[in-house]
Amino acid sequence: MEIASRIDHALKAAVDHAGRSDAPPQLAEAIRYAVFPGGARVRPRLCLAVASACGDDRPELTNAAAASVELLHCASLVHDDMPCFDDADVRRGRPSVHAAYGEPLALLAGDGMIVLAFEVLARAAHQAPERLVPLITTVAGAVGMPHGIVAGQGWESETSVPVEAYHRAKTGALFVGSAMAGAVATGSDPAEWSALGEKLGAAYQAADDLRDALSDADEIGKPVGQDQVHQRPSLVSECGVKETVGRLEEYVASAIAAIPDCQGRASLEALIMSEAKRLKPKSLSQVAA
Amino acid sequence: MEIASRIDHALKAAVDHAGRSDAPPQLAEAIRYAVFPGGARVRPRLCLAVASACGDDRPELTNAAAASVELLHCASLVHDDMPCFDDADVRRGRPSVHAAYGEPLALLAGDGMIVLAFEVLARAAHQAPERLVPLITTVAGAVGMPHGIVAGQGWESETSVPVEAYHRAKTGALFVGSAMAGAVATGSDPAEWSALGEKLGAAYQAADDLRDALSDADEIGKPVGQDQVHQRPSLVSECGVKETVGRLEEYVASAIAAIPDCQGRASLEALIMSEAKRLKPKSLSQVAA
Repeated sequence: MEIASRIDHALKAAVDHAGRSDAPPQLAEAIRYAVFPGGARVRPRLCLAVASACGDDRPELTNAAAASVELLHCASLVHDDMPCFDDADVRRGRPSVHAAYGEPLALLAGDGMIVLAFEVLARAAHQAPERLVPLITTVAGAVGMPHGIVAGQGWESETSVPVEAYHRAKTGALFVGSAMAGAVATGSDPAEWSALGEKLGAAYQAADDLRDALSDADEIGKPVGQDQVHQRPSLVSECGVKETVGRLEEYVASAIAAIPDCQGRASLEALIMSEAKRLKPKSLSQVAA
Repeated sequence: MEIASRIDHALKAAVDHAGRSDAPPQLAEAIRYAVFPGGARVRPRLCLAVASACGDDRPELTNAAAASVELLHCASLVHDDMPCFDDADVRRGRPSVHAAYGEPLALLAGDGMIVLAFEVLARAAHQAPERLVPLITTVAGAVGMPHGIVAGQGWESETSVPVEAYHRAKTGALFVGSAMAGAVATGSDPAEWSALGEKLGAAYQAADDLRDALSDADEIGKPVGQDQVHQRPSLVSECGVKETVGRLEEYVASAIAAIPDCQGRASLEALIMSEAKRLKPKSLSQVAA
C-alpha cells in the first residue's frame, strides 16, 4: 500500500473507533475534523520511512505508530490554537477546531486524541506485546513532560526561556519520537535514528519561523507573525532571515547525513528534500531561483 | 506498605519524573499542585484493593496502575474546572489549577498528566510486558472516546443527552477501569470486576449529585449547585432527593453484592462502606441519625 494510504487508513480506523455510533456525535465530529484532511503528515511519513528502512516486519504496528504520532501532533495543534494560547481562528485554511466547534469540544477533542494515540498503539501490539513498552515510552517522551511538546509549550509561560530546549521540546521531540517509533515498531534499536529526527525537527522549526515571518496567511493556511505577537523565541527574531535560511540549509544537509546506512536511504533522502522544498517560504524560493 | 503510602509513593515518582530539574518549572509545579495533596484517592484505592484480592504478584505494576487512574482523574478535574467548562475557581478547598497558574498552564498540566498516566504504565511493565496491552486498553477505554470520561464531558455539549450513558461515561467508566486495571495488573481476568466498578461509580454519581444539591461549598471544597447552573443531567433534578438517596443506598448494596468471592472481600466491603459514609451530605446524615 502507498505510504499516504497506509497513514490515512490507520488514522481513519482510529477516528472511527473513537466516533462509534454511541459516542457523543459533535465531539466525534470535532476529532474527525481535527485529523482530516490533515496537513503534510510529515511525522507519520517519517515514522513509516524509518520502519521500512528497518524491515517493517509488523506493518500493522508500524501503521499504528504512524497514526499515534499524527494524532498527538493534531491534538497539540487543536490545543495550541485555543484562545488561551495562540487564539488562532484559522488552521490549514479553514476554521480551527475551537472556531468551528467551540472551546469545550476543542479541549475535549485534544484530550480524546491524546488518549486515542496510546490506545491505538496497544490495540495493534497484541502480536508483539514486548514492543509496546518502548513504543509507549518513546511516544510519551516525545509529547509529555519533561521534554516533549507539552514541556515546549510550558516554556512559553516562563520569563526566562532556554531557546534550544524550547525548540527541541516543542518541535524536535516529536520528530525524534516519530523516527524512533518507526524503528521500535520493527523491534530495532531506535538509538541510531534519533539524530535524523533531531536534525529534521530543527530544520522544520527554522522553516516554520521563516514562514511565520515571511509568508502570508493564504500561503500557509494559518495566521502569520504569531511569534512576534506572542513574543515567542524565534530564530528569525534572534539572528535574522539570512542566518535562519543558512541554518535551515545546514539542518537539511545534516539530516540527510544522519540517515544511517540502510536499504531505505534513497526514499528517506527524497522525503527530506521534498519537505525542505515544501517548507521554504515562496518569497525565498523566488529569490533563490 | 500501607495502601495510602503505596499510592502516594507511586504518584510522587510519576510527578517527580515529569518535573525533573530541566522541565519548565511552573508547569511542573502546576502538575504537582493538581495531584497533591489530592482527595480521597478512591479510584487508586479501588484499584489496589482489587489487585490485592487477585494476589498482587507484581506490586510495582499495581502501583503504576493506581497512579495512572488517579493521574487521569486529576487531569479530568483540572480541565473540567477551566473557564470553558465549569469555570470553577475552587477545588478541594483552594484555588483550582487555572485559578492558581492561569489557563495555559492548566490546559498543559492536564495534557501532561494524561500522557504521564500512560507512560507510568509502560515504565512499570518491563517485567510483565504482556500485561501492558490490556492495561493500556482498559485505562484508555475508561477515559477516552467513545465511552470514557472525555465522552461523558462531550455529552454536555449535546442538546439531547442519554442520561445513563452520560453518567456511565463521565463517572462510572473510570471506576470500572480502576477495578479492572487492578485485576489486569495481576494478570487476572478483569471481567468479573466490572460490575463492582459500575455499581460503585453509580453510587458515587448519586452521592455527587446529592452533595451538589444539598451541601455547602465549605463541606465539599468546591462550588455547589453546579448541575443546575450548567443545566447538567442530575439524578436529584430528575427524581428528587428522596429517590436519589434510595438509589444511592441501592447502589452501595449492589456494589457490595458485586464483589466476587475472594480473599480481599472484607477490605473491599470496608472500602465501600467508608466511601458511602464519606460521600453522604452531612445534612442527610443528621436527618438519618
